[in-house]
Amino acid sequence: MSIDRKPIKVHEAIEAVLKFAKDGEVEYIPINESDNRFLKAAIKADHDIPPFDRSPLDGFAIRAEDTVTASQTNPIELEVIETVGAGGLAKKVPEKGQVIRIMTGAKMPEGTDAIVMFELTKEIERDGKTFIVIKRAFKSGNDISYRAEETRTGDVLVEAGRQVEPGVKALLATFGYSKVPVAKKPIVGVYATGTELLDVHEPLEPGKIRNSNSYMITSQIEKAGATAKYYGKLVDEFDRCYEAVASALEEVDVLITTGGVSVGDFDYLPAIYEKLGANVLFNKIGMRPGSVTTVAEYKGKLLFGLSGNPSACYVGFELLTRPWIQTYLGSKKPHLQLVQGILKADFPKPNPFVRFIRSKVTIEAGKIYAEPVGLDKSGVVTSLANSDALVVLPGGTRGFKKGDEVDILLLNGEGSTEILKK
Amino acid sequence: MSIDRKPIKVHEAIEAVLKFAKDGEVEYIPINESDNRFLKAAIKADHDIPPFDRSPLDGFAIRAEDTVTASQTNPIELEVIETVGAGGLAKKVPEKGQVIRIMTGAKMPEGTDAIVMFELTKEIERDGKTFIVIKRAFKSGNDISYRAEETRTGDVLVEAGRQVEPGVKALLATFGYSKVPVAKKPIVGVYATGTELLDVHEPLEPGKIRNSNSYMITSQIEKAGATAKYYGKLVDEFDRCYEAVASALEEVDVLITTGGVSVGDFDYLPAIYEKLGANVLFNKIGMRPGSVTTVAEYKGKLLFGLSGNPSACYVGFELLTRPWIQTYLGSKKPHLQLVQGILKADFPKPNPFVRFIRSKVTIEAGKIYAEPVGLDKSGVVTSLANSDALVVLPGGTRGFKKGDEVDILLLNGEGSTEILKK
Repeated sequence: MSIDRKPIKVHEAIEAVLKFAKDGEVEYIPINESDNRFLKAAIKADHDIPPFDRSPLDGFAIRAEDTVTASQTNPIELEVIETVGAGGLAKKVPEKGQVIRIMTGAKMPEGTDAIVMFELTKEIERDGKTFIVIKRAFKSGNDISYRAEETRTGDVLVEAGRQVEPGVKALLATFGYSKVPVAKKPIVGVYATGTELLDVHEPLEPGKIRNSNSYMITSQIEKAGATAKYYGKLVDEFDRCYEAVASALEEVDVLITTGGVSVGDFDYLPAIYEKLGANVLFNKIGMRPGSVTTVAEYKGKLLFGLSGNPSACYVGFELLTRPWIQTYLGSKKPHLQLVQGILKADFPKPNPFVRFIRSKVTIEAGKIYAEPVGLDKSGVVTSLANSDALVVLPGGTRGFKKGDEVDILLLNGEGSTEILKK
Repeated sequence: MSIDRKPIKVHEAIEAVLKFAKDGEVEYIPINESDNRFLKAAIKADHDIPPFDRSPLDGFAIRAEDTVTASQTNPIELEVIETVGAGGLAKKVPEKGQVIRIMTGAKMPEGTDAIVMFELTKEIERDGKTFIVIKRAFKSGNDISYRAEETRTGDVLVEAGRQVEPGVKALLATFGYSKVPVAKKPIVGVYATGTELLDVHEPLEPGKIRNSNSYMITSQIEKAGATAKYYGKLVDEFDRCYEAVASALEEVDVLITTGGVSVGDFDYLPAIYEKLGANVLFNKIGMRPGSVTTVAEYKGKLLFGLSGNPSACYVGFELLTRPWIQTYLGSKKPHLQLVQGILKADFPKPNPFVRFIRSKVTIEAGKIYAEPVGLDKSGVVTSLANSDALVVLPGGTRGFKKGDEVDILLLNGEGSTEILKK
């Protein structure tokens, strides 16, 4: 089938996809299951932290005024009248010359206004009573952790759209989120196309290769925060392909196909979009790899027609599908993080299209470097395993040299609010 | 209880822990469940990639010698005798003046030695036969992807100890790993101590706070690649604490306790180590936060006595427990990744101990910066949620200024082979 293909720019493609962005629904899940999920609401302090004035260490709660005259040459003795542990409350109120032994985290006893750590005191016993000896004066407020000094009720501590990680989880626990409001995961369907594809458990045959894209893409989907639903391989017959795609679309939020979007005789996807009556957003992007990447929209749902070449498939997902997923999850940084760094190899040959070069980032003396990994051909699968970044080489008439400053998209970075403008 | 505490250096503490490193067993799991697991064996190519000479695009497989005379002014016609799709094999062998229509990925037909893409040809029909018109000469080898040009049988593509991610998974699929050899996850038990601790679902009470450490640390354990087993809160009674610890130790590979290692009256852990007959590796580290961090060994198993202060607990885990877990999993980079960067705030006050300051890393114009996050006190929980790094400020007599170059440990980095020497 012959179709007119007019390449659009990468950022135009991303923008076209995000016109069909959706805001995922909320669901409440147990805190123990919330790791890596995206918060659908900000975490707000429902109480002050600390919730009360407290001792940050093990020592004695004293009345500072009792120590005014204390010095090396004039040690004073104060009577220990009670011990209060963390979680306990003092029952007595010290009067002049009295102190309360207090453990880390315990609430400041009424009538006391300073903490003195164990190490600055000496304990003595006399007449069945316990005293401490103090050899210096302490000011009111010494070593107290004051109520709300860390956070006040109502403060927003973590924004909606953030992913739950250990530090976030500590706050969820602190503020009593036994159930956590998170974004539901979108369901992303995957169909592979290609008569040459064998499944992972099948022995190799002449002319055939194993299907690596489906495994790779389901990993990418899960890493991006969605649920992958793998439908298998589309058969090599148009009507059955059409039925399979139409039926899968009813069950998923987004459907990815790998392969079948090029100009080959068995590339059925363009015809399937047409028969569906889907709105083809674009069928060519001015980029390498992945120029044939196609996205169509049907009843508000997107069909991502990714290339069957492993590297092109990988890049197409990261640039186009991932931002859709992350937007659905409420992430404020749905795009790959873009940084600048130094190129570690020559790319003398210019290319009319922007190139995304699989690379490995290193940090040396505080600076970012990117080294291309392996063969830079779209069909190459091995280089993906050792990449953690894509070097972005703009299209045009110039080549690039080792030492040039280039844009680098981090595959494991914290994301970005901005769309790459290339 | 009074114990002698002699601080050791951070790297001495890490080295002491890793003297009890273990090498986890292998288990074979389905490829679909292998995301984020650690490979117990290298991925080796069991066949060449490509496994055969193939066409990297949609076009025609030709005999280059047939095109020697072709030019703009002297176009030649070649007969199309067969079409072969990816996964298929040509049945015919072209003779002089004949070509085979070929799709991306298909094996090079016998007798052909060059590929010409569709776009460089024109198809015509005559006498019921199909011909292509070619207006230039092509060299033997034009646009062929040769067997093994990407990888040869026996090449090691991914080392043992690497974590499975999308690119690695693509290779596992390519080489037929329907079952993947990964390291068994160690089981890390967690007991919290502290009478002041409420569980996440309990309402606040005077003098009490919610237990955030247990939730945080189980997240850290899972993130590090292990299985967390939370046992709950140790009760405030020595004999029952002792029984609980001794019994948990039988079920886990490592036991973490949070709190109870300081010098407070209810800090039972030192006495529990003593009663067990455990070998205390150290009970003080020259660092802030987390100086009271204690590690003991009992019958080859480690007991990590982390501080009850959230930040101290967090740092203690990342510096000491995580490398043990990652070593067990076979990671070659079990330590936090160390980079250099620019400090974005003043720390004028010197400290005798090395400090680990919760910070947020930014990358600006190819350089790394670290900005301290929130209050830098060990009891502070809120700053952890917004940190992705620990700035390392060496102990000594000097303070640090905005603009100083400092060491930075990345909490989400790719790890390091090296132990921090501070």
